[in-house]
Amino acid sequence: MRIMVDAMGGDNAPEEIVKGCIEALKSKEGFDIELIGIEEEIEKYLNKYGYNGNRILITHAPEVIYNDDKPTEAIRHKKNSSMVIGLGKIRNNEGEIFISAGSTGALLVGTLLVAGTIKGVLRPALAPVVPSMCGGTMIVDAGMNTQCRPVNYVQFAVMGSAYMEHVYKRENPRIGLVNIGTEDEKGNNTLREALSLLRKCDLNFIGNIEGRDIAEGKVDVAVCDGFTGNAMLKMMEGTGKYFFHHMKRIFNRSLFSKISALLVKTHLKKLKDSVDPEITGGTPILGANGLIFKCHGNSTARAIQNTIINAYAISSSGFIEKIRERIGNMEV
Amino acid sequence: MRIMVDAMGGDNAPEEIVKGCIEALKSKEGFDIELIGIEEEIEKYLNKYGYNGNRILITHAPEVIYNDDKPTEAIRHKKNSSMVIGLGKIRNNEGEIFISAGSTGALLVGTLLVAGTIKGVLRPALAPVVPSMCGGTMIVDAGMNTQCRPVNYVQFAVMGSAYMEHVYKRENPRIGLVNIGTEDEKGNNTLREALSLLRKCDLNFIGNIEGRDIAEGKVDVAVCDGFTGNAMLKMMEGTGKYFFHHMKRIFNRSLFSKISALLVKTHLKKLKDSVDPEITGGTPILGANGLIFKCHGNSTARAIQNTIINAYAISSSGFIEKIRERIGNMEV
Repeated sequence: MRIMVDAMGGDNAPEEIVKGCIEALKSKEGFDIELIGIEEEIEKYLNKYGYNGNRILITHAPEVIYNDDKPTEAIRHKKNSSMVIGLGKIRNNEGEIFISAGSTGALLVGTLLVAGTIKGVLRPALAPVVPSMCGGTMIVDAGMNTQCRPVNYVQFAVMGSAYMEHVYKRENPRIGLVNIGTEDEKGNNTLREALSLLRKCDLNFIGNIEGRDIAEGKVDVAVCDGFTGNAMLKMMEGTGKYFFHHMKRIFNRSLFSKISALLVKTHLKKLKDSVDPEITGGTPILGANGLIFKCHGNSTARAIQNTIINAYAISSSGFIEKIRERIGNMEV
Repeated sequence: MRIMVDAMGGDNAPEEIVKGCIEALKSKEGFDIELIGIEEEIEKYLNKYGYNGNRILITHAPEVIYNDDKPTEAIRHKKNSSMVIGLGKIRNNEGEIFISAGSTGALLVGTLLVAGTIKGVLRPALAPVVPSMCGGTMIVDAGMNTQCRPVNYVQFAVMGSAYMEHVYKRENPRIGLVNIGTEDEKGNNTLREALSLLRKCDLNFIGNIEGRDIAEGKVDVAVCDGFTGNAMLKMMEGTGKYFFHHMKRIFNRSLFSKISALLVKTHLKKLKDSVDPEITGGTPILGANGLIFKCHGNSTARAIQNTIINAYAISSSGFIEKIRERIGNMEV
């Protein structure tokens, strides 16, 4: 299996990206990596970190898409960028997995225009699995579609359900529609129509949910528009930082509290890691014609390494085939 | 000063409401309480908790608005409900403060139709102050207006700024517009227009922010539509529960971890309280023609007590006059 990685995407590219790839290859067998980007830059860091194996292939891409490039223009005009070349290879089945920490906007436009979507999928969606009391809940969409039609919510639910069933092995995943209250009449007309469509689907749909139900693990998949999902996701990250900021202060107050910290250190670290995007790795774009992962723009080698290993692990889960089958059978 | 309390609002009414009022009177001088609701019910609990002072006045309201009543119909038809009577007294200046744990929808409709808004305020807003690294950040709106026009965001900013300046004593409060990225072109046309209007205002507006910037305390006031604000608020509550759920497990693992918990107990409790709506108390409705507080539907006596004391403390802050002055001078 070949995993393609955008060497030029993100604030720490290409050094941290190249380093993350080397670490991933060291820690796991079974795949090769195709690093796409400016060849001499990639080689410089392969040398710096002393890589001399044969599991890395470099594909030269002279152009770079930057965060302040307009997404649609960047995808249309920078044909020789690492991102466009990688997404083109997804479209042509020259690789199954593409990972990028580059511009979110460009990656999303590129998924639609270059890689393409699974037949029948109207809008792909960014779908992170966030920490929750049931062991992780997927938010679909978390930033790709700021406005949605009722049918989009239904497709998000179908795709999220397939993912959680096949990747997280949840039986009959519970789906909820994010609203400002659980009563059926809450929200606007679009949400009420989405609720009615979701009730008719062959899914384990439990109805409207509120933001708190996500972290409390009352659902396996929370469906919402990309604006709401993004705001909630970032709020969760910020709240995590708030807690650990105060925890640190609490444990640093006195000799006793420092002793206290030592006694629970390992477990606190695990809790902190559960909300750290560096550890949890990239976010899949559901509905794309292949496995595409978006990493945080500030990803370090560790995030890239974790995303590669995670992507490799789920590539055999069969969730894309399941989405293809279910969306193919949908009447929209 | 007279503080009016809706005795019939919320899941635990009237018992916990009456009890909360008694506790508030015990803990603080300087105000009387007008309990509005079914007289014999109120008296029953005043007797149960042995209240025999002269600081409680009962106003009989035979009707009750329930959570499943349609808000507009409830406000129009249940003229003799505790909520409509209380809001009517706000309109007629027969009381300065009204506190209710009843139906959010009905309270919001009632604020518009019965109590009325400050002259020039187009839409009032539910505005909780959530925990953040700067000591609290206000979210405006958190559930009242699911869709907003650009001018609404500007008014939310003006009102939130007045509140944080006068109640929280923040000098020149920092205002941010919640978006899915910090770049100016993010979001839809409404948000871009709101951004442009906010830049022209005489406010300390720092531009677009993301959900994480709220908990991290990068602003004193986060402005957004009520759907987004509600989703973020609930997500923060849920994330708090997620953390303390795991903290409890961590501290209960072994004898060592139990000792560890004892060493930091007091401070952990404070951190937990900072995200507990029972402790932080009710949420003000900004732009209303008086001081109206919405408490959680599941409020216990403690939440009611804290809201009363909080409302009394801020009633002399002058923030309503400031909103009146600033909105009066706005060209909309």
